[in-house]
Amino acid sequence: MKKLEMLYQGKAKKMYATDEPDVLWVEYMNQATAFNGEKKEQIAGKGSLNNRITAVLFDLLRARGVDSHFIRRISDTEQLVQKMDMFPLEIIMRNTAAGSFAKRYGVEEGTPLKKPILEFCVKSDDLGDPFINNDGLVALGIVTEDELAEISRIAYAVNDALTDVFSKIDVRLVDFKIEEGRTADGVILLADEITPDTCRLWDLKDGSGQIEHLDKDLFRRGLGSIIPAYEEIYGRLTALADEEQIDRAE
Amino acid sequence: MKKLEMLYQGKAKKMYATDEPDVLWVEYMNQATAFNGEKKEQIAGKGSLNNRITAVLFDLLRARGVDSHFIRRISDTEQLVQKMDMFPLEIIMRNTAAGSFAKRYGVEEGTPLKKPILEFCVKSDDLGDPFINNDGLVALGIVTEDELAEISRIAYAVNDALTDVFSKIDVRLVDFKIEEGRTADGVILLADEITPDTCRLWDLKDGSGQIEHLDKDLFRRGLGSIIPAYEEIYGRLTALADEEQIDRAE
Ligand SMILES: Nc1ncnc2c1ncn2[C@@H]1O[C@H](COP(=O)(O)OP(=O)(O)OP(=O)(O)O)[C@@H](O)[C@H]1O
Ligand SMILES: Nc1ncnc2c1ncn2[C@@H]1O[C@H](COP(=O)(O)OP(=O)(O)OP(=O)(O)O)[C@@H](O)[C@H]1O
Ligand SMILES: [Mg+2]
Ligand SMILES: [Mg+2]
Repeated sequence: MKKLEMLYQGKAKKMYATDEPDVLWVEYMNQATAFNGEKKEQIAGKGSLNNRITAVLFDLLRARGVDSHFIRRISDTEQLVQKMDMFPLEIIMRNTAAGSFAKRYGVEEGTPLKKPILEFCVKSDDLGDPFINNDGLVALGIVTEDELAEISRIAYAVNDALTDVFSKIDVRLVDFKIEEGRTADGVILLADEITPDTCRLWDLKDGSGQIEHLDKDLFRRGLGSIIPAYEEIYGRLTALADEEQIDRAE
Repeated sequence: MKKLEMLYQGKAKKMYATDEPDVLWVEYMNQATAFNGEKKEQIAGKGSLNNRITAVLFDLLRARGVDSHFIRRISDTEQLVQKMDMFPLEIIMRNTAAGSFAKRYGVEEGTPLKKPILEFCVKSDDLGDPFINNDGLVALGIVTEDELAEISRIAYAVNDALTDVFSKIDVRLVDFKIEEGRTADGVILLADEITPDTCRLWDLKDGSGQIEHLDKDLFRRGLGSIIPAYEEIYGRLTALADEEQIDRAE
């Protein structure tokens, strides 16, 4: 596989073409950003950790019947994925009230929810990624009813599988954001990344009753270094994958 | 029917108890407000017009099979309604992009929608009436799944009936906000008011191609007096009710 020209540089990753038209070469960078890019920092080791975490998570999901764009990891900071036509959506699942949701509705962080919440935001830096409901998505022609049904089915399936994974490593999966896209032959798949940058993960091992963040809120809220937390997540995930004897595509 | 103590004074109406426990006496005031109360004015004639408009609209809806809390009009500015346990929701239906929706998603006012959009906001002055999706409503325990299904069914039925009414008087029903509640015996019904304060109504008679507002946007945007516009709406609605030989409960 040959790495060709860079197609896109985002805030966290660089995407390169390869000599296979349906395969992208992804490079995870050390850059951390929050608040729509307002807060920005280089953090040594972050790219490598996120590349390895998302790889093992995609493997753990595949073992639970949830497919993704992930092909295989090719280095500490790089992986190959299927090239997709991305939906311009942030697909958010919430199991516990936190972050912008808790603020928006005036409920305390940690408030349990009567059921998981699937939320969509339209990806648009200019508009500040506005929240949209199902009717709005279809009415504006962003997705069709059929696409929305499949996108939603996958999001709930990812939540079930991830909740199982994280409960097995004593971590509470509070909420997360995923992206989905369509392959050249029209199959809708989970894509992008699943890392502590895109999930809220609270440690359950810590019995203090205080919330122990193992995720990007450490950076967002200036609570301390993310590296030991991300390493802790990676360590527990690889132990689980070994225990499950998962044939890791990395 | 005796008017007893005032139960609540809102921005547009005063609600009084009566000697019937299930009946409220509503008085429409002349006050106009916008932007969560930031802009405020007394406008002579507004209370009377809104009281008469909402009465004839509830009659036109009833003739189309859509029930409401409306009992009868008792004066120029007063009406009797069934007392309800209100859901703390602004229930918004959109047929055309306008207002906050157009701004939020960066589309032009007047952009047609591929289907009507049903939106909910949680009524909370402190939180600024935040937008919420269906999962959120159930997850926070604001409504049950069954209540949400019935609330939504009614909202779409109101939209169908109102769209028919306004098309017959050459007015485009762009969007509107309603409220619903539950009667003492658990029936969910349309309540509150339907007036040019709570609808966007664009005149189709005016062939200029310019948007001719017959609604509160005249006040919100400082485009001119609302009174002639509200009188125009009232005149056309009563002509339609006469034409349909509706037995008006007022
Ligand atoms: N399999 C895929 N095929 C094509 N594009 C993908 C795939 N997976 C992820 N992407 C896209 O690649 C980009 C990843 O880069 P990164 O995460 O750094 O972007 P970002 O800074 O979050 O910005 P944005 O997502 O707003 O473009 C995203 O735009 C994402 O939607
Ligand atoms: N049938 C009903 N039974 C009980 N309450 C009702 C009924 N219909 C409407 N209401 C409530 O009465 C109030 C109407 O007053 P008004 O429209 O002036 O309120 P408002 O200024 O819009 O403020 P808010 O709606 O936020 O309380 C609203 O709170 C509305 O929910
Ligand atoms: Mg990203
Ligand atoms: Mg009101």
